[in-house]
This record gives sequence, structure tokens and C-alpha cells, in this order.
Amino acid sequence: MTPPPLTGATRIVPILAHPVDHVRAPRTYNPAFAAAGLDWHMVPMGVAPADLAATLAQLARVTNLQGVNLTIPHKAAAFALCSRVTAEARDTGMANTLRLEADGGWSGANSDGIGFLGAARANGLLDTARPVVIAGSGGAGTAIAFALAAAGVREIDVFDTDAQRAGLLQQALQRQFPDIAAGTRREALRRAGLAVNATPMGLHAHDAMPFDPALLPADAALFDIIAARDTELMAAAASCGLRVLGGRPMVEHQVAHQLAFWRGDFIPTELRR
Amino acid sequence: MTPPPLTGATRIVPILAHPVDHVRAPRTYNPAFAAAGLDWHMVPMGVAPADLAATLAQLARVTNLQGVNLTIPHKAAAFALCSRVTAEARDTGMANTLRLEADGGWSGANSDGIGFLGAARANGLLDTARPVVIAGSGGAGTAIAFALAAAGVREIDVFDTDAQRAGLLQQALQRQFPDIAAGTRREALRRAGLAVNATPMGLHAHDAMPFDPALLPADAALFDIIAARDTELMAAAASCGLRVLGGRPMVEHQVAHQLAFWRGDFIPTELRR
Repeated sequence: MTPPPLTGATRIVPILAHPVDHVRAPRTYNPAFAAAGLDWHMVPMGVAPADLAATLAQLARVTNLQGVNLTIPHKAAAFALCSRVTAEARDTGMANTLRLEADGGWSGANSDGIGFLGAARANGLLDTARPVVIAGSGGAGTAIAFALAAAGVREIDVFDTDAQRAGLLQQALQRQFPDIAAGTRREALRRAGLAVNATPMGLHAHDAMPFDPALLPADAALFDIIAARDTELMAAAASCGLRVLGGRPMVEHQVAHQLAFWRGDFIPTELRR
Repeated sequence: MTPPPLTGATRIVPILAHPVDHVRAPRTYNPAFAAAGLDWHMVPMGVAPADLAATLAQLARVTNLQGVNLTIPHKAAAFALCSRVTAEARDTGMANTLRLEADGGWSGANSDGIGFLGAARANGLLDTARPVVIAGSGGAGTAIAFALAAAGVREIDVFDTDAQRAGLLQQALQRQFPDIAAGTRREALRRAGLAVNATPMGLHAHDAMPFDPALLPADAALFDIIAARDTELMAAAASCGLRVLGGRPMVEHQVAHQLAFWRGDFIPTELRR
């Protein structure tokens, strides 16, 4: 549905990112707001990490603010600024969806894992009996790892060029889900039923690929969460005969969850950190 | 022209107002930006006067900021925050159009008078040989009074429920244009060729009228600068047989001037206060 024109009665939902140029989310959210009969508009704002706290403090004073969406690199810092969080935000230490409560504090949710699972299931990519390998242990990779574990996947490896960060995620995952096998082995690609790109590699043409999809079993699937474009990784995986999904369905599956959160339709199950 | 959907590549032009609900400017500016081939989007933000300086300081840090539009009640405070101003902003002490310069300072312009004159001339409302009466000595009334004097009108009265503010405007106008007759007489309506509503009265249904248009000569014109709606004053003036113009043409005539300022296409003639 075509979004209605902005007016002074429009409630705004800034999406904070840095850099902001690659952000395409408003093209998904604004039609979804219109389809839900809401005069809301998502507005891109490029905000450097050092400016996040002050920007949120100012946005909290804007009278027509409906909520805030956060993407790279703001999710962990946004979580730290919340006074209340959902279970998904608490588990991951990340918030990508903020709303202002009546007491002036921010409530934070994390829709990344929920959107990932919804898209993977809707497209038949999730077989919880098979190992999953995730490239990238940042905000999205963390949310996806926790969502997969909560969904019943028993073997999850997360690797990263920042090996220390991947190791910390492995430990956090293992602590929360003692029964699963959490690892950091890139080699697990050879046995995976599903490989996930949760790195920013592929955002720009000529980026290197985060891994070689030829390493995957022939019946595996690739989920590249980059939504801005079809990546070289997706093309390479398709040419290997793998099932391939890009990032837009994940965004679409997040919208309903975030929209409900911004409406205040549901109360976070975990109110206090 | 239909504005393109917002993306991360979009440059934003917040319009700051308080309250913000009545603001309709984005419906004019966004199609104009699109028609000019610019991926810019005007975004309403409700900001209280006490928050203006901090909000502008934060907006200055937003990487995809193109410029800022200011409306009631921010124009005088915005002027005070500028390091460079145009002649129209300097004369009126008001800025409704800000752009960020490379040195981090704001440049300010005031398009109200330029837009008013453009619309009045295009619609045949301006006869510089006849007296003009303006209701309202706030930001818009001030800009309009200076623009009319600069355009050659020799007799200008401005009245206001805040008589002191109207008196200060009269003095400033007389100082800048020693040859004109500047007054504060509501009674001048009986001789006026043009009466202007530059108050917020009429923004809302059931507002009282700022003056009785039946006082005007039968061949006079009424220019009500309220753009959000057709006002009761306009209806009453029309039923008296007066020529009547609402506020939208004034907004439209301001767009080209502001757009050029935000593009940086012209350098303010008055660079320093």
C-alpha cells in the first residue's frame, strides 16, 4: 500500500544507522504502516555511535515520536539505554526496537531472531535436526543464534573475523542453552543444513564473501540476511545448486512484531533487567 | 509529483513546530523536492521551545540532514542560533530556513516575506499605492511587514493583542524604512487595500476571527496566511465580496527560495550579524 503523504499529524519512527545510506527498511515499513491504517512514517537518520545517547534523549522529547528502529552499529548501545526489555533483547543484549514509556524510560525489543525464524520457516529453510552455521557474531548473528537454539536447533557454530566476539557468543549461548553444542568452527559448514550470513559482507558490490558456499552440502540452504541487494554470496550459492534466501523476507517478518511493540499492543514479558 | 519512498539515501529536512499537528508543509515540499529530482524528504517533528537548541545541536550531527524548516514558535530562537543570516532574516530577527555550513555553524534565511510577496503579486492582491493592514506581529507578520515596505508600500499598520510587540515592530519598521508611515491602528482597516491575517487565529475551527472583514473597503483584498484550512475569516470576507487568498500559495512561493537555500545554490548576501 502506498504510504500517505507526511503531515504534522504523522507519527515518526526514526531508523538510526551509521552509515545510513544502505538502509532500505522504510520501503518495507512505510507500506506496512499504511496497510495497518497507521499514519506513521519511518525516517532514516544517520547517527554516529558517539551521538546515539544524546540523539535518543532528544528524540524522546519529540512530541510526534512513535518509536525508534535501530540498526548497525547501535543495537547493543540501545539495549544499554533501556530500562525495560523483552526476553529476546535480554538474551542477546541487543535492542533494535524502542518505545518510550509513560515514565520517560525506553522499552527495548529485539526482532532480529523472530524475523529470521519466521522467514526461514516460511521458506522451508529450517530443519532443526541439522547443524546451522552462522557467519558473524554481531547483533544479528547473536539474535539469530539465540532464536535458533530456542527453536530447537541442537548444533550451532558461529564464526567471525573477530574470534573473541564469536567465542563470547558461544559461551553466552552455551550458558543459556546447556543442552546444545555451541561452537565457533568455520569447518562446520561442511555438515550444515543451513548457513547464515549475518555479517555486513555483501552490502556493497565487490565485497569479499564471508565464506565459500561450495563448502556446504549439496542439499543445504543459504540465508543471507543482507536486505539491500542480492549478494555475490547468494549468486555463488545458487550456482552450487543450494536453496537461497535473501534478507528482505526477514525484514518483512519483523514488521508485525515491531509494529505491535510500537503500538504498545503487548507488554514485554521481561520488564526489568 | 509523487515523492519517492524514503530510503537510507534520502536526505531529510525536519520541520520543527510546537504543536506540530496542524503542519501541512510536507504535502507541498515533498512533491516539490521530487519534481526537482531531489531525494529529500521533509519530516515533521514536534519540538517544544525549551528543546529547540538541543534538538538543533543533535540534528547537526545527523549525517543525512539536508536542512531544517522552522515554524511557530521557533523562528526567533532559530535566528538567535545562526552564525550567518540572509538580509530578510537579519531585518526580521527570524529564521525559518536553516542549513549547516562546513564550519558547523547554521546559516539562516527567512522565506515568509518572499513567499507572501510572490503569492500576493501572482494573485493580483498587491497595490503598493494603497495602505496595508496586518493582524499579528509575530514571525510571519514581521516578515510580511518588512517585505511590503521593501516592495514599496508606503503605509503599513500592524496590530496585535500583544500591543507592546506590535509597537516594537512598528519602531523597527520605521527605523529601517524612514519614509513610510508605520502604525499600529486596527482602524486603518477602513482604508486598506489589503488586509493580512498573520495570527494563528483560524488554525482551528471555532477560533475567533482576528478582525471583522466587513470593516474593509468593498474593493479590498484579504490574504489569510493560514495554510492548513480555509478559515472562517476567508468565508466572511468572501461573503462581503472581497477578493480572498488563503495560505497555500504563500507556502508554494516559498519553496523555490528555501530549496535553493538548502541546496547551497546561493550565498546569503548578509553573511555576518
